[in-house]
Amino acid sequence: MAGELIYFLPTLDPAHSISGRQTVELKGYSHIAPGVEYRIRNRSTRFSTKYDRSDGRLVTLIKTLHDGFTMTRGFYIGRFQPYHNGHHNVIDTIAEEVDELVLGIGSAGDSHSRHDPFTAGERIMMITKSLVDYDLVTYAVPIEDLDRNSVWVSHVQSMSPDFDIAYSNNPLVIRLFEEAGVEVRQSPMFNRDVLEGTEVRDRMVDGGDWQRLVPDPVVEVIEESDGIDRIQQVSDSDSNGI
Amino acid sequence: MAGELIYFLPTLDPAHSISGRQTVELKGYSHIAPGVEYRIRNRSTRFSTKYDRSDGRLVTLIKTLHDGFTMTRGFYIGRFQPYHNGHHNVIDTIAEEVDELVLGIGSAGDSHSRHDPFTAGERIMMITKSLVDYDLVTYAVPIEDLDRNSVWVSHVQSMSPDFDIAYSNNPLVIRLFEEAGVEVRQSPMFNRDVLEGTEVRDRMVDGGDWQRLVPDPVVEVIEESDGIDRIQQVSDSDSNGI
Amino acid sequence: MAGELIYFLPTLDPAHSISGRQTVELKGYSHIAPGVEYRIRNRSTRFSTKYDRSDGRLVTLIKTLHDGFTMTRGFYIGRFQPYHNGHHNVIDTIAEEVDELVLGIGSAGDSHSRHDPFTAGERIMMITKSLVDYDLVTYAVPIEDLDRNSVWVSHVQSMSPDFDIAYSNNPLVIRLFEEAGVEVRQSPMFNRDVLEGTEVRDRMVDGGDWQRLVPDPVVEVIEESDGIDRIQQVSDSDSNGI
Amino acid sequence: MAGELIYFLPTLDPAHSISGRQTVELKGYSHIAPGVEYRIRNRSTRFSTKYDRSDGRLVTLIKTLHDGFTMTRGFYIGRFQPYHNGHHNVIDTIAEEVDELVLGIGSAGDSHSRHDPFTAGERIMMITKSLVDYDLVTYAVPIEDLDRNSVWVSHVQSMSPDFDIAYSNNPLVIRLFEEAGVEVRQSPMFNRDVLEGTEVRDRMVDGGDWQRLVPDPVVEVIEESDGIDRIQQVSDSDSNGI
Amino acid sequence: MAGELIYFLPTLDPAHSISGRQTVELKGYSHIAPGVEYRIRNRSTRFSTKYDRSDGRLVTLIKTLHDGFTMTRGFYIGRFQPYHNGHHNVIDTIAEEVDELVLGIGSAGDSHSRHDPFTAGERIMMITKSLVDYDLVTYAVPIEDLDRNSVWVSHVQSMSPDFDIAYSNNPLVIRLFEEAGVEVRQSPMFNRDVLEGTEVRDRMVDGGDWQRLVPDPVVEVIEESDGIDRIQQVSDSDSNGI
Amino acid sequence: MAGELIYFLPTLDPAHSISGRQTVELKGYSHIAPGVEYRIRNRSTRFSTKYDRSDGRLVTLIKTLHDGFTMTRGFYIGRFQPYHNGHHNVIDTIAEEVDELVLGIGSAGDSHSRHDPFTAGERIMMITKSLVDYDLVTYAVPIEDLDRNSVWVSHVQSMSPDFDIAYSNNPLVIRLFEEAGVEVRQSPMFNRDVLEGTEVRDRMVDGGDWQRLVPDPVVEVIEESDGIDRIQQVSDSDSNGI
Repeated sequence: MAGELIYFLPTLDPAHSISGRQTVELKGYSHIAPGVEYRIRNRSTRFSTKYDRSDGRLVTLIKTLHDGFTMTRGFYIGRFQPYHNGHHNVIDTIAEEVDELVLGIGSAGDSHSRHDPFTAGERIMMITKSLVDYDLVTYAVPIEDLDRNSVWVSHVQSMSPDFDIAYSNNPLVIRLFEEAGVEVRQSPMFNRDVLEGTEVRDRMVDGGDWQRLVPDPVVEVIEESDGIDRIQQVSDSDSNGI
Repeated sequence: MAGELIYFLPTLDPAHSISGRQTVELKGYSHIAPGVEYRIRNRSTRFSTKYDRSDGRLVTLIKTLHDGFTMTRGFYIGRFQPYHNGHHNVIDTIAEEVDELVLGIGSAGDSHSRHDPFTAGERIMMITKSLVDYDLVTYAVPIEDLDRNSVWVSHVQSMSPDFDIAYSNNPLVIRLFEEAGVEVRQSPMFNRDVLEGTEVRDRMVDGGDWQRLVPDPVVEVIEESDGIDRIQQVSDSDSNGI
Repeated sequence: MAGELIYFLPTLDPAHSISGRQTVELKGYSHIAPGVEYRIRNRSTRFSTKYDRSDGRLVTLIKTLHDGFTMTRGFYIGRFQPYHNGHHNVIDTIAEEVDELVLGIGSAGDSHSRHDPFTAGERIMMITKSLVDYDLVTYAVPIEDLDRNSVWVSHVQSMSPDFDIAYSNNPLVIRLFEEAGVEVRQSPMFNRDVLEGTEVRDRMVDGGDWQRLVPDPVVEVIEESDGIDRIQQVSDSDSNGI
Repeated sequence: MAGELIYFLPTLDPAHSISGRQTVELKGYSHIAPGVEYRIRNRSTRFSTKYDRSDGRLVTLIKTLHDGFTMTRGFYIGRFQPYHNGHHNVIDTIAEEVDELVLGIGSAGDSHSRHDPFTAGERIMMITKSLVDYDLVTYAVPIEDLDRNSVWVSHVQSMSPDFDIAYSNNPLVIRLFEEAGVEVRQSPMFNRDVLEGTEVRDRMVDGGDWQRLVPDPVVEVIEESDGIDRIQQVSDSDSNGI
Repeated sequence: MAGELIYFLPTLDPAHSISGRQTVELKGYSHIAPGVEYRIRNRSTRFSTKYDRSDGRLVTLIKTLHDGFTMTRGFYIGRFQPYHNGHHNVIDTIAEEVDELVLGIGSAGDSHSRHDPFTAGERIMMITKSLVDYDLVTYAVPIEDLDRNSVWVSHVQSMSPDFDIAYSNNPLVIRLFEEAGVEVRQSPMFNRDVLEGTEVRDRMVDGGDWQRLVPDPVVEVIEESDGIDRIQQVSDSDSNGI
Repeated sequence: MAGELIYFLPTLDPAHSISGRQTVELKGYSHIAPGVEYRIRNRSTRFSTKYDRSDGRLVTLIKTLHDGFTMTRGFYIGRFQPYHNGHHNVIDTIAEEVDELVLGIGSAGDSHSRHDPFTAGERIMMITKSLVDYDLVTYAVPIEDLDRNSVWVSHVQSMSPDFDIAYSNNPLVIRLFEEAGVEVRQSPMFNRDVLEGTEVRDRMVDGGDWQRLVPDPVVEVIEESDGIDRIQQVSDSDSNGI
């Protein structure tokens, strides 16, 4: 979308609080170009803006997505080993429904195995780089395993910014959130990520074309961390070995 | 700095890769206002820009901070119980030296005590909201305790995006990073955060004016989570109690 | 209460299901003495019984405490190091309000220290023996520490039979249950247990008269496990020692 | 056994302490029917009683099972996922040999999986409800995994009331108890519980008739906790999912 | 004792098995000097030897310490932060009573604090170097904390070579071993090690003469690991710091 | 090697420090037989000695293996379940390259299973007894699992005496050490230990001739701990059992 700019107005002066549609003066944002329609996001809602040609400093902020200034934050859990196009498509879908999204990086303490090759830090980089130009505030939060299903939801809730909706197609995740009274939204596409994760790792190990299955920044992160060598090497390990 | 806009150019076309000082056409960024000097950040370096009046579409990107397109990422650990002005000042200082900063949220699993009142998720919100308009890419990463000093650095390194410099004035943190061969930078002001954290919590418990000691967004987060009630209530607990 | 007998009728024949007040024949309970008023408990409600003199086999079951056959289960957490009269009085009070009570034995993994002299198994015995003639179904459930306040309620809920009301005067416990949406009932007397626990242990160490502060069966359990010797001996330990 | 009543005499007055065979007056037990032979259990031994017709208040207590007032407590470990008829039959057998029985609920922290669908709290309810009319004092004690065979016996011993005999047909359990010097009794029927557990869970997942394989109260507990839905749902989970 | 040589005869030929006092030919030990009395130790007993001048190849092995070829192994637990002369004196005493001694290095996972400055590996070096010329087979075994007194003895027993006697003056250690049926030997001098450990660390932090309180090889190990700098630095840490 | 004696000269007087080849008087070692060539090891290098016939008290120490008095310590990790000839051969090879060798006993907390039958303490005995007459200073160090690859190297380094070279053919171990900057040496023979370990355990369970696959002292240790019975018994266990 040429002509679109996504950014934060985090210090929105309370005097500028807006209800419905109105014209406000945004001092200090002189750079906004005349005649361009932007989408501006602040912490509690989402606006469209219209530039006011008359003085180059006023914009019309048009609240477009949510009534009552409510903000919706979603939660999406995955192991992201690695973050791939399946995850990316899921997030495309979720982005239609929420203002902010927490990406819980599961099994954060696991790394250096065929099933979990990358560290939590590397996965944070994959996610952050892949989502940097999304119209969505995202939080990448590593979640270490507690290995106890009965407290898993509480654990996630303590590690994550507060969220309203959990997105998952994993039956266990759905069950645990539902028993805890958290709204869960599912879609058949949500579980394609699992299948694709295995496919990506298989290709990495076998020397196949894994690059096409992940966003470009993920390729970059994996190459910087020498990730292909790593997964190939550790895949040879007999667990007896140590 | 009125007239300044900080944002990402994450999909910088390789055809636009810049060495030294040159003029490039940034298609799709038509909104950049004439005559204003911006700072633009991409993932690997930091530029200043000059708008080219002639066609409203060319900017001069002036690489200002780093030679050789290297990027520096720092690491700053704290418990952030809560995030306060002492932390904020430290980050002001660090921001002069790095392009990106990881904020490690220590003792991430602790909450609901006088010493550690807030959850990791709440602390992520405090940090993210307080730093949202900083000219600095930040990552807020919860780090659970392993209670074993000898592996602490490895643990931190696995949870965090790769970093070049650790910032701390805590003698133990300094020692552990130095024994692991990580560069540490210190400053007397870095340890004011510890003192101020205690002061903030004391005021919260005693009904004092803690709000002046923290950034405004932190006040907001604490009020949303009913944090003052919580710290006051749990401070009455005799640890025998459970 | 001479003449009273408390026992279970767990296999109450569905054909005998009772609404309001009626006379039923309880085959196989020929031993019930004429003219004595018993209280009989089944799993879902509480009855009084009147013996029918005419054939020595019919009793009148009078539902006395709850309408609609609902049953209330409470939860009361303590370390019970040891179980003492303070706990006993609390349970006397709680017994007025619930049909069943779970006694969560906190810090179940701790033992052999001045603060936590007895094992979970020994504490189960103290509780069970002290409550055996109570008109209250009780469950003594050891709860190991997870050392993470944010998941504590989930942990307790997974270990315990489902409960409706938590009883505590400990501010942290109250806070945690309330944030989880569990009803908590408090009373000033509930926290006397903490004070008395310290007093009992002090007397044990100093050779004072601790026996008067605990129910008789607790004296028995402690003597069987050579508990006084144990607490006196471990109280001498310098934690440096191991 | 019509005419039999099992109950506790926990506060047996020391003045009534009995050696050999004698006649004692048990005040407050006026309800004992004439001419009926009961078994009365107190905490330290087991008696038969004979009612003395002459005044309706004297009984003859006949010590029948143990010499020297010894009491035998057994220990039986299982995961009880769920408690089923195989367990029930085992306990029938054990009940012939002991006065009290501790049921150790293994893997107490596991739940919400096909292999371990139920929480420790739910399993306590299954056991307690199924055994409530047994002539056996039982303790249902959740035992969390320590994942270290070498300390398993000590762990169990600290969590459980003291016991004299362990019942198991599991070779590892037998080995561990024997190396620790604990008497173990085995029987071919003891390991049928393992096979039946798998069969019960398979039927739950596949919609078969699992109800016939468990005591009635277990059906009740599982239905109250929506257990069939839960096991069916989590059985679909790919462990990759979280 | 000049003229004495302590060494192993581990491959003592069964044909040479000795009962009582006898003369055997030890082929391959031609180096034994005439007229010198040695002590020779094999794995199962301790001998004195007398050289037979007649052919320079026969020695008289005189079993001096144990009947029936039994060997005694002791166990001595400490944190050894650092290993000092107090420990050394204790071991001098123990060496009179046992053939082999296990030195359990407690809190093996702790390091880099004022109370526990050195790693388990560093402590192994201190002990091994200090005891290398002792007439005693020693094993330095790191023991990580399980933080559960009730399983501590089992944990120690699984990590350590089998032992017959535990040496300690720490009341908790004594209690735990005694409850587990392990013989414990005490002496007032055994607990001087605790006091001296604190004194040594205080001197290290304050720049005093700690070197006189430890064996020479310990000075060497600490200097190689830059230990004085470390303890001084971490002693400044406020535990709030991380 | 008849006529050879390996022992320590740990208290080598500094006045006797030797460079190149020279003759020194070793007081107190009068027992050294004339005309015999020994190898003597002290802590920092390895010598051959020649006895000086003229007065029976002078020896020539010939430094043979290392220049500059540097000492090399290696690290070799294994589970040693049990220690067998494959390990022994590996150590034969390593012994050519190092002065001292740390044997890290992996999965130290595991025991009493078919895959890990022996305790850490038993494995220490196997190793120590098998290596007692090696010309190599060895340390047997139990290493408990942390189950986190990213901190594994730090964990090992804290538990072990400092080492210069790691020996392994396990791809994961190699990878982890290499990422941490530790030199790793590999050889095809190093991974035969894994295969042989399985073979040894299979024979133990099936009643085959396992004795030929392990050093004699290992047979002894296993028999003392009744190890064959143990592995046969626990191999029957269904993991469902507890």
